Order: sequence, then structure tokens, then C-alpha cells
Amino acid sequence: MENFEYQCQTKIIFGKETENQAGEEINKLGKKVLLHYGSGSIKKSGLYDRIVESLKKANVEFVELSGVVPNPRLSLVKEGVELCKKEDVDCILAVGGGSVIDSAKAIGAGAVYDGNVWDFFEGKIIEKSLPVGVVLTISAAGSEASNATVITNEDGPRKASSHGNIRPKFAILNPELTYSVSKDQTANGIADMMAHIFERYFTNSKSVDLTDKLCEGALRSIVKNGRIVMSEPENYDARANLMWASTLAHNGLLGTGREEDWASHGIEHQLSAFYDIPHGAGLAIIFPAWMRYVVKQDISRFAQFAREVWKIDECCDEDMAIQAIEKTKEFFKELGLPTSLSELNIYNEKFVEMAKICAGSGRRGNFVRLKSEDIERIYELAK
Amino acid sequence: MENFEYQCQTKIIFGKETENQAGEEINKLGKKVLLHYGSGSIKKSGLYDRIVESLKKANVEFVELSGVVPNPRLSLVKEGVELCKKEDVDCILAVGGGSVIDSAKAIGAGAVYDGNVWDFFEGKIIEKSLPVGVVLTISAAGSEASNATVITNEDGPRKASSHGNIRPKFAILNPELTYSVSKDQTANGIADMMAHIFERYFTNSKSVDLTDKLCEGALRSIVKNGRIVMSEPENYDARANLMWASTLAHNGLLGTGREEDWASHGIEHQLSAFYDIPHGAGLAIIFPAWMRYVVKQDISRFAQFAREVWKIDECCDEDMAIQAIEKTKEFFKELGLPTSLSELNIYNEKFVEMAKICAGSGRRGNFVRLKSEDIERIYELAK
Repeated sequence: MENFEYQCQTKIIFGKETENQAGEEINKLGKKVLLHYGSGSIKKSGLYDRIVESLKKANVEFVELSGVVPNPRLSLVKEGVELCKKEDVDCILAVGGGSVIDSAKAIGAGAVYDGNVWDFFEGKIIEKSLPVGVVLTISAAGSEASNATVITNEDGPRKASSHGNIRPKFAILNPELTYSVSKDQTANGIADMMAHIFERYFTNSKSVDLTDKLCEGALRSIVKNGRIVMSEPENYDARANLMWASTLAHNGLLGTGREEDWASHGIEHQLSAFYDIPHGAGLAIIFPAWMRYVVKQDISRFAQFAREVWKIDECCDEDMAIQAIEKTKEFFKELGLPTSLSELNIYNEKFVEMAKICAGSGRRGNFVRLKSEDIERIYELAK
Repeated sequence: MENFEYQCQTKIIFGKETENQAGEEINKLGKKVLLHYGSGSIKKSGLYDRIVESLKKANVEFVELSGVVPNPRLSLVKEGVELCKKEDVDCILAVGGGSVIDSAKAIGAGAVYDGNVWDFFEGKIIEKSLPVGVVLTISAAGSEASNATVITNEDGPRKASSHGNIRPKFAILNPELTYSVSKDQTANGIADMMAHIFERYFTNSKSVDLTDKLCEGALRSIVKNGRIVMSEPENYDARANLMWASTLAHNGLLGTGREEDWASHGIEHQLSAFYDIPHGAGLAIIFPAWMRYVVKQDISRFAQFAREVWKIDECCDEDMAIQAIEKTKEFFKELGLPTSLSELNIYNEKFVEMAKICAGSGRRGNFVRLKSEDIERIYELAK
């Protein structure tokens, strides 16, 4: 087990009708808030009205910035930064999923920084930020309690992440708000949360028995409840277990004491930067390919994954490992996710370029340190 | 799944030699600290010197209060409160196990309160407190990241708990510091952390699949690593997994979305108040008796406990439930813990009195609401 520091301060407010507490919670962070959201589906659902009412009740003044899209754009972040500075905003309320939250985090960091906000995506650590609160509407990215944000610079195209002191101050999680999430988006979210656990589970750190078991338990719960919500989108308890799992999958807890990997996320980020595909779908394609490429690094860990997550019981570790990778892929298929690049009409034209950007000046990942050529082969395996 | 609010702000600093960061961390909380500890074993081990050196390096002034005993006493808490007020202390550093931390929390609350600190143990919620930091030396109570404290009023005798805004600001967890914990104390600690999970696991809340699995995983990890440390007290990884498990068992995470029980803790508190026995040993005696008394409330939950924690696979839920209770008792026995009151020369003289105090004016517990007569019967079953 590795040494670690861990602190997740995000206050979780979980359950039915909790979105009505948004105003009261924001009021603890400031008197003027940027209300940040996506395409406007929150207006159709009535959520926007409830949030606005809650803000008014709490005497919180607000300005708005909508228009966040999946793979959130730097241009909108810059617009948000300007708006916060101009309007002298105290804090940000992100109402939406991971894209809206990531966008809000980047705006929060940029609003108290004199330089170009993209600096934070080129290696600068975020030390301070406007406080961010969240009303979550999609179980997926775990951004509501994570210390990371991922933004796409359209001028690259380049999708990059930044870390730092940006965990939201509070996150309101009402599972009912996810009833209306489409099947596709629900499936993308399930792949995303599983991927967040995979990045931590596949490690070279030895003797991490406790977090192994927590990862395995969370994965089994996601598989079980994931299956339920695909056929019963309004099953409260399944949505609730899945929603809490999505937060715990990425608030850092499951990686404590472990060296994490994160190669597959890097490999996927180039895919969604170049082709603007949903992050979850990209992960569903990349992860099984990555697993096939790296399985020999630690057959016994993959066999444990087979036994504890997929309940595969064979005599030979190698067979179990291979079957577990197949099972993972089959599960993604069962959810209706793509599991090959060709299904999205992505062929090998840009594999070399994407692999080079992904590897950057060095290597990617920790479980196996991947060079540009390795990443190219993983794209090939994902074809 | 129930609605919940959850926030655990404690910064965890985990790993080898981390105690040397105590000064630097305390320095963020104040310039003058009360150094609070137990019997002086930290002086023999050299830990005291390292802490003092770390405080000096960080230019933190300190005053000392030692002498905390298991089942920490109100009299020492009051002494600490006076000392903090007199010396104008900014914060408290607890170096020790659960008793020292609980004592520090109570002192912290009392130091910024004008009334009698015992008020907080008679129902008053702790709203503010001096900030507390921890260097943990025993894996057991989980007080290093919990919002609770338990103090014994010698004038009762009465052992009572209080809750509130008292989670430590940081907790330094170096598993090496637990190498020297005796077999008895190690075993008490294992029973304590398992009990903290049992109090959350046995619930009437339905569809709490995710936290069920997290509880089960943590329990299995405790059983596995508990066995290892009993024969290999200096096995770093086993001590490390156990130490992190003890914190996670009681930082509130495993109870999210669940109605918790806490009857067994109440029943045990009277035992250790009347007979001054170690809390962990008391729990090892009480919990199997409580389980036998309440098993019929939800046979299928006990069968799940059997299957997922003890890997018992029988055809009939009732048999599995009974076997799981036996297994729990056997495991405590294997650790060298007492599993009956008679082993500690406790007979039925005070059962009626203890049961009455425990039930208070109402009932105790949530899984089954226990009246005074029920509690008496549980003491009888534990004979």
C-alpha cells in the first residue's frame, strides 16, 4: 500500500426534492452566483424554475450562462470567465452533468486568475477558484466531488485535464432528476463510472486489499443497477445506487494507497477531441482494447477481476483474465454502447497523430507505461 | 435508499513517517496547541520526541495534558477545558487512539463553551469547537474522522456520546505506529471496527445495494488482515489495510442512505461504564448476543451477511443466518476476545439497572426497537 493524502470536502445532499436546497446552500458561498447549464433541457423539465425559485427564496442574485455541450469548450469557459469578472460573481452553480460541472470549475479557476485559463490545462495547478456548487442531473463523470476538470480547446483540437483545489463545495444529488436521461446517455454514464474505477483498480501497487474490495463491490453494484435502469428508467433505488456509485467512483476514495493508471482516459480524450464522440462511448471502446493490450502485465489481477466482479470461476488464471475482458465488452454491448471504432465510422487515418498527442513528450499510464506506438496499437485493437 | 447529507472534511495523511508532518499541519490551525495523550507509552516509543520536534520545527508553542485512560473520563476533560481557557490554546493535537481523540474532541467543545461540558453528552449538539488534529496510534475507534465522541462520567457511572461539528481537521495515520499495539488491544480494535460496520449494515432500509457491498468488502478485508496482524504484528500492509478500514468503518460513508442501528453500542457502553472493560471486548460479547436476539427481524439480511462476508453457502436462509452469527463469535474467539460476560466475571447483578439506563426514557436501536426488557434479555444471552 502506497502513502497517500486524501481529503474530499464536498458536502453531499442526496435524495428526493433536494434541488430545492440549492439556494440555501449557495447562500453560504456568496450573494451573487453564475447559474451555469447546458442546452436548456433543464427548462423543459421544470428544474430551471425550481432552482431559480430556490435562489430567489434565499435572496441570491444570479446571472446566467447556458450552452455547455458534451466535451465542454474552452470558448464558453472564456466567456464565463469574462462574465464572472464583469459581473463580480461570488460563486458558481452548475446544474447538469459532468460537462457543465467541468466547465464551471474551469470558469471558477479562470475568474480569479489574471492569465489565460488554458494555462491550467497545460500543467499549471489550480490553487484557487470561485466556489462551485452542483445540482447533478446525470450519473456519470463524478465531477461533482472530484478535483479535476476536462476541457476541449477547439483550436487544437485538444482535450486536456486540470487538477487542483476545485472540488465543489456541495453537490445536490436527486436520483429522480436522472429519470429523464436517455438510454444512450445512461449507458455512457455507466461506462464512465466503471472506467473511473478501472483506472484505479488496475495497479501495480501491492497489498491493497481493502480498496480492491471496495472497487469490486462498487463495480458489481454498478453492473447490477445499470442493468435495472436500462429497462426501468424510473426505478428510484436503482437510479439512487447508481448515482451515489458515480460519485464514489471518482471522488478519489477508491484510489487511496494505490498507484492509478489513467492511460485509457488519455487515449479516449483524443478520440472525443478529434471526433466529438461521447466520452463514455469512447471509454467503452477503448477500455477492453487497453485490457487486451496490457493483460499480461498482471494476469492474476485480471483473474481476481474475473472472480470478484464477473463471478467467473475457472481453473486457470489466464482463461479467467481473457473471459473477464470479454465479459466487460459484452456488458457494454448489452447496454447498447459501441465497442469498436468502426461502429462510429472511425478508421485508422488519425491513429498515429492521436497516439503522438496522447503520449506527449513521454509515456502514458502507470500499470503499463505506454509509448506512442503502444497507444497506436490500442487504437488498432479497438478498430 | 434513504435521503442523506454527508460531509467528511478530515484530511487523511497516510503512510510511513507521516507523524513528522504533525507540526506543519497543526501550524495551519493555530500557533498554540494542547498536546493531549495517554499513559506515556508514546514517550517510551519515541513518538513523543518526534512530535515535539515537529511542533518546534513548525514554530508551534504547546502545553501538555496526558493521562487519558480507556473509557476516557469527564474529570480529565474538564481539566483540559480549564487548561485551554487559561492558556489561550488555539487547537488540540491528540496523539493516541480513540480514547485520546474522544477526550480531545470533548475538550475542544468545552473550551469554547461557557456551560458545563457534560451538557453535550446530555443531548446538546456541538456547534463549535477548537480544531483538533490527530496522530493515530491504534486502529480501532475511527474517531479520527468521525463526528462523535464518547466520554465516561465517573460520577454516574455513565458513558455517553455526543455528536456535532467535531470531525478532526486532519488525521495522520502511520501503520508502523501500530506495530507495538498489544495482541489484546489489536483484537479489541478489530471488534470495534467490525461493530461500527455492523451498526450500519443491519438496517431496515431497502435497496441499499452499493453500501451493502462496501460494508461487506470492508468486513472481509478486516477479517483477512485482522488474522494476519495477530500472527505478524509488524506486517506493514496488513496493518495499513486495517488502519484505513478502521477509519472508513466510522467516518459515516458506509451508513449513507441507510437507517443505522447503534443499540449494541449503547448496550456495551453501560457494560464498560459499570465494569470498565475495554469497549472492543464488550462489543465482541454483546454483538453476537444482539444478533441472536434480532435475527428474525430479517433472516434474508443475515443470510446475505453469511454469504457475502463469511462465504457460507447453504440452501436455507435460516441456517445461513445462524451460522453467520456463530462464525462472527468464533472469529472474535480466534482473536482471543471474550465472547461471554462470565469470562470477565460479570454476572446478572446489574443487568436490570444497566438495561434501564441504556433504554433511557424510550427505546434503543432502529433495526429492532429495544425496550429495557429486551436489553436485559440480550445481557442474559451474553452471559
